[in-house]
Amino acid sequence: MPLNVSVVENIMSANDRLAQENHARINAAGVFSLNLMASPGAGKTSVIEQTLARLSGQLRIAVVDGDIATSLDADRAAAAGAQASIQINTGGECHLDAVMLRGALEQLDLKQFDLLIVENVGNLVCPADFRLGTHKSVLIASIPEGDDKPYKYPGMYRGVDALVINKIDLLPYIDFKMDFFRRGVEALNPGVMTFPLSCTTGEGLEQWVAWLLQNVKHGT
Amino acid sequence: MPLNVSVVENIMSANDRLAQENHARINAAGVFSLNLMASPGAGKTSVIEQTLARLSGQLRIAVVDGDIATSLDADRAAAAGAQASIQINTGGECHLDAVMLRGALEQLDLKQFDLLIVENVGNLVCPADFRLGTHKSVLIASIPEGDDKPYKYPGMYRGVDALVINKIDLLPYIDFKMDFFRRGVEALNPGVMTFPLSCTTGEGLEQWVAWLLQNVKHGT
Repeated sequence: MPLNVSVVENIMSANDRLAQENHARINAAGVFSLNLMASPGAGKTSVIEQTLARLSGQLRIAVVDGDIATSLDADRAAAAGAQASIQINTGGECHLDAVMLRGALEQLDLKQFDLLIVENVGNLVCPADFRLGTHKSVLIASIPEGDDKPYKYPGMYRGVDALVINKIDLLPYIDFKMDFFRRGVEALNPGVMTFPLSCTTGEGLEQWVAWLLQNVKHGT
Repeated sequence: MPLNVSVVENIMSANDRLAQENHARINAAGVFSLNLMASPGAGKTSVIEQTLARLSGQLRIAVVDGDIATSLDADRAAAAGAQASIQINTGGECHLDAVMLRGALEQLDLKQFDLLIVENVGNLVCPADFRLGTHKSVLIASIPEGDDKPYKYPGMYRGVDALVINKIDLLPYIDFKMDFFRRGVEALNPGVMTFPLSCTTGEGLEQWVAWLLQNVKHGT
């Protein structure tokens, strides 16, 4: 007689189940949510600051910041006008996961918000493997990172719903071939929405903010 | 009577043991070796190219490149004058580990080289946890990443033997407070060697190359 073998869930499916629970909770509250991912220093926090500067008058925005250490980013989000700002310190972990986000959601009265922005740990690899339960995944690339990143980090570029191309004000000073970059993006993620912009000059932020507003107003 | 319990090694100590074996192999061949780590796009490959341009006439240099996908970096190292250039594709893994490096070392006649440069996967978190067996760990920071990175990625800054601060030619265009950055570095890694430089203008590369030459000539 064969033993009655129980299949043990692997870590990914356990995370996915919790991500579904997060998703249901966020949906029930009627808040539109983003998982913002990027390399360290690509400008996640700056994009959040500029978004808050343009939208905090008309939307109620909560920010959840993931970092290995410090609350620097949550402090910046609070200073920029987020109505709630929660820092998750991962204690060494290189990505957020669904259980970490659940802990943050439990501290928020989600119905009080229109937009929830989750800022993941700066990492162009690992966060792509862990769903959080947000509506949209957004990758922030930046000009100084170089035009070869889609080719070298395909997992991240493949899985996102929108791509911000930040720091376009630095294009005159850096050898960045936009055609080469875009060909790489298009091969991995055909037709993905892209938002070239600069948090320094403000160029392109209008389109990004319009896309957010549209998502908030029309649901998901 | 208690059972005779064997303690199962965890993955870190297994990696450390293989790193020791790599170290012995590299040492026996008399080659000085670096583990070059950085965020995606901080300029690891550019630093390697500039190093090769200055040293490939006087040193025999091998480069091992770790990436999730493509051989773009190994191709660049070969074009820049590396006498051997090996690409490791990690197939999704976000860091190199000792067994991956062992695989690359087995393809090299190490005695034929003076300097071995291992370019890790672009990631400011995970590579810090996996020793490879090289002599020195070097972190490449870059100005566009921002001055808060030591505070947010302490594990990486704490563990390295030298710090390259790349893209200093972009300082006029970016709000980067060097004092704040250096205070963060000093708190985590007092007295660590730093090399501010630009691969675009060439500024500062002389000091970096001199440090490498000194290490190659005087052993480790």
